[in-house]
Amino acid sequence: MSEHPLEQIFHPRAIAVVGVPSQGTSGRIGDFLGSLKAAGYHEQHGLYPVNPKTEEVAGLRCYPTLLDCPDPVDHVISQIPARAVPLLVEQCAEKGVRSLHLFTAGFSETGDAEMAALEREIVERARAAGVRVIGPNCMGLYVPAERLSFMGGFPTEPGHVLLLSQSGANASAVVGGLAQRGVRFSKAISFGNGADLQAHDFLDYAATDPETEVVTAYIEGVTEGRNFFEALKRCAAVKPTIILKGGIHPAGARAAHSHTGSLAGSIDIFEALCRQSGAIRATSMDDLHDLVIAVTTEVRRVAGRGVALVGGGGGIAVLSADAIATAGLDLPELPAETQRQLREFIPVAGTSVRNPIDINIGASDDMRRVYRIVAAAEPVDVIFGTSFGVGPSGPAGNQGRDGDAADDAGAAERAAERARQAADSFAELQEESGIPVVALQGGPQAGTFQQRAYERGVAVFPTVERAARAIGMLLEWRTRREGLPAIF
Amino acid sequence: MSEHPLEQIFHPRAIAVVGVPSQGTSGRIGDFLGSLKAAGYHEQHGLYPVNPKTEEVAGLRCYPTLLDCPDPVDHVISQIPARAVPLLVEQCAEKGVRSLHLFTAGFSETGDAEMAALEREIVERARAAGVRVIGPNCMGLYVPAERLSFMGGFPTEPGHVLLLSQSGANASAVVGGLAQRGVRFSKAISFGNGADLQAHDFLDYAATDPETEVVTAYIEGVTEGRNFFEALKRCAAVKPTIILKGGIHPAGARAAHSHTGSLAGSIDIFEALCRQSGAIRATSMDDLHDLVIAVTTEVRRVAGRGVALVGGGGGIAVLSADAIATAGLDLPELPAETQRQLREFIPVAGTSVRNPIDINIGASDDMRRVYRIVAAAEPVDVIFGTSFGVGPSGPAGNQGRDGDAADDAGAAERAAERARQAADSFAELQEESGIPVVALQGGPQAGTFQQRAYERGVAVFPTVERAARAIGMLLEWRTRREGLPAIF
Repeated sequence: MSEHPLEQIFHPRAIAVVGVPSQGTSGRIGDFLGSLKAAGYHEQHGLYPVNPKTEEVAGLRCYPTLLDCPDPVDHVISQIPARAVPLLVEQCAEKGVRSLHLFTAGFSETGDAEMAALEREIVERARAAGVRVIGPNCMGLYVPAERLSFMGGFPTEPGHVLLLSQSGANASAVVGGLAQRGVRFSKAISFGNGADLQAHDFLDYAATDPETEVVTAYIEGVTEGRNFFEALKRCAAVKPTIILKGGIHPAGARAAHSHTGSLAGSIDIFEALCRQSGAIRATSMDDLHDLVIAVTTEVRRVAGRGVALVGGGGGIAVLSADAIATAGLDLPELPAETQRQLREFIPVAGTSVRNPIDINIGASDDMRRVYRIVAAAEPVDVIFGTSFGVGPSGPAGNQGRDGDAADDAGAAERAAERARQAADSFAELQEESGIPVVALQGGPQAGTFQQRAYERGVAVFPTVERAARAIGMLLEWRTRREGLPAIF
Repeated sequence: MSEHPLEQIFHPRAIAVVGVPSQGTSGRIGDFLGSLKAAGYHEQHGLYPVNPKTEEVAGLRCYPTLLDCPDPVDHVISQIPARAVPLLVEQCAEKGVRSLHLFTAGFSETGDAEMAALEREIVERARAAGVRVIGPNCMGLYVPAERLSFMGGFPTEPGHVLLLSQSGANASAVVGGLAQRGVRFSKAISFGNGADLQAHDFLDYAATDPETEVVTAYIEGVTEGRNFFEALKRCAAVKPTIILKGGIHPAGARAAHSHTGSLAGSIDIFEALCRQSGAIRATSMDDLHDLVIAVTTEVRRVAGRGVALVGGGGGIAVLSADAIATAGLDLPELPAETQRQLREFIPVAGTSVRNPIDINIGASDDMRRVYRIVAAAEPVDVIFGTSFGVGPSGPAGNQGRDGDAADDAGAAERAAERARQAADSFAELQEESGIPVVALQGGPQAGTFQQRAYERGVAVFPTVERAARAIGMLLEWRTRREGLPAIF
């Protein structure tokens, strides 16, 4: 653990959930209570529902007010109406609460001057009493090591990526979407309006957190530009820091203002901030996901722009080659000696060994041989592979040829085993060749393959376009970082 | 049927499949035979496998040579080695065959001068004998009305989109991918090297074919530029014509040359050809798919750039608004009177009625009311909807709350029924409002919803980005077409 002043916020003991409905686990606030209880939080640290109208909620004793809960309470999650929050802040102060997560919305984001003023008053009073506020208008904390989560399906295992997000929905999209691709998180914070704790506070914390190796953020507006820039610089100097900015066009900025009360500001200034600080700016949610994959797999060590593309049909290879070039990467023609070695066992008709390597061989051993020869070629910095006994939407091999066995209960497990073997083949090739190997794999069946490949440091992207774009952005970012300390 | 000289090629009677393996339906040539037989082609028109080494294949009588087949044979599908093709051409001539589909590869695309010369000789001899050649190095014909198909899973019902493609894999990606989104085809032609029949021949045919309303093409190289331009102009003048060009970068061009022997040429010239002819140039496979959806649904009538975005979470709405603006569309703030009408029943906290309309109401009747009010607002030309009792990855409603019922055999049918109802709701709103409604729906569960929505003229796109991009391209294309006859 770090000595950072925010450290304790991520490791609360007892939590009170204020404003739970009498039924206990209905609605979003009920989800908070329900997911903490399901994780066993009440047994480990204490979990106190607060509602004056009932004595028990979801099998837990319910307290009439925060002040009636057993001491101490570290963290409060609240969904009471906005106008009742000042009283709750007084209770937090009296109780010695360290952090107050206001799920409650209806403050500055409404555009109502009176509610914006109320938000400021609440924060001033809380700060004066030593209570830090997360929100309002947000989902709060996900800390898997502490079993703290704002969404039921999030992974329970911790990892090394920290996310900060002004949007709860986008936080869920990042954690949920990247979890499917194998990524695990140290912490995620949805902080909504950011009335007290803001992006710069969390970036500052992330820079020092030993559990965090990679930082990513979704930001709508920055009120304290200087603090933000300084924190971003400190963080990006030591860890890959990937930022997605919402509200870059007037319509998006209007939406951001309605959403979190943010004044989105100029995207040119934001872009300049990212460039100068050494952060990476993602321009879409897909970019953010793909860049996290790129910097947490062997792809982060890619030495240059030379891509070898192995496998796939003729016309698909043509479009893939175009996509690689569009992303600013090269698809160098392979040296004559490499081509000669490949021609020793690749049939001529309907194939090419120039690059893309458009081959029609199914046998796994031959395919390994192709990868080895290609990886050894001088102009190749990274291999994109579409075949290794694995088709574009799942493990191939016998796919579609199992006949009745497809309905077999064992078929799913056999498919999963083939997917694991395919992932292992990619990983072994990557290890022995010393250059990154990218697996192209999307679709609903990709789960097992993606998880295993990621565990072994192999990046999986759903399309050539996205793989090439992520690597192009990574290389551009690395060039910009020159002069800063190496972080890989 | 049209009087076009190619018409008869699309309506062959008896077909011979030359070079089938003795086992009958193994390998790709076996697939051709197998899928024709499965479609009952042998009973309706005659289907003759040719292989001198066996007397029966897949339950069909097998003939030693083409000349031994019963008269007449209209169409020949061949996979014999390249060097044996000249003899087959002589047999075709003698037999009065009208079209020869050479699946066989190994001609000009190998880069071997001798094989390129052989390809030219074959075509010259065939033409002189009145035999048209499709290919070599291609998958040939898909004509659902004639039960003619080169891929097992293609829809058996005909539609009104004609595809021509130099790539078999890309032809499959177009037909298969768009079929999942509800599109049906009049014809698809995979013509590979295009040694005889080329893009301009098929474009010329497509322009006059009464079964075809929309034309789309994947092209790698054009050898007869003037003919291509003239045919493209004729076709694009009367039907929406969407072209994807492969080989736009040097690496892609090299791949195209290895794939179909094509000389890809300058993309600037190609782009200019498309602009001058009134065609739409797609720059990726996704674009091609999305443009076909756009021109075959009510989206084709979109009157301007004004988008209203309904539903979805706060941060997601912010990014969506940015994506709409990035695509060159507007997300106009709704008029005060529209906002007032929406505020009558939309709660304030955490919502916005300015546009994007970020609402948290689940009830279907209320949602219909929202759509009606928004559709009536003057600056709105098209509505993007993410909610109508349907979540982003399938019918929501009770999703995740069915408990044990999720395993119920009836659950799938209930989900399908909800998906149909949701699609019908979009269609009804589109009909009554008179402006296009776009449904945002992706993921594996989208099938039923997409099919039903498309049947009723509602465009479904997987993401806001893709919907906005397709509409932006459609509007740009329409502006360029000014002066040409209206085609919608």
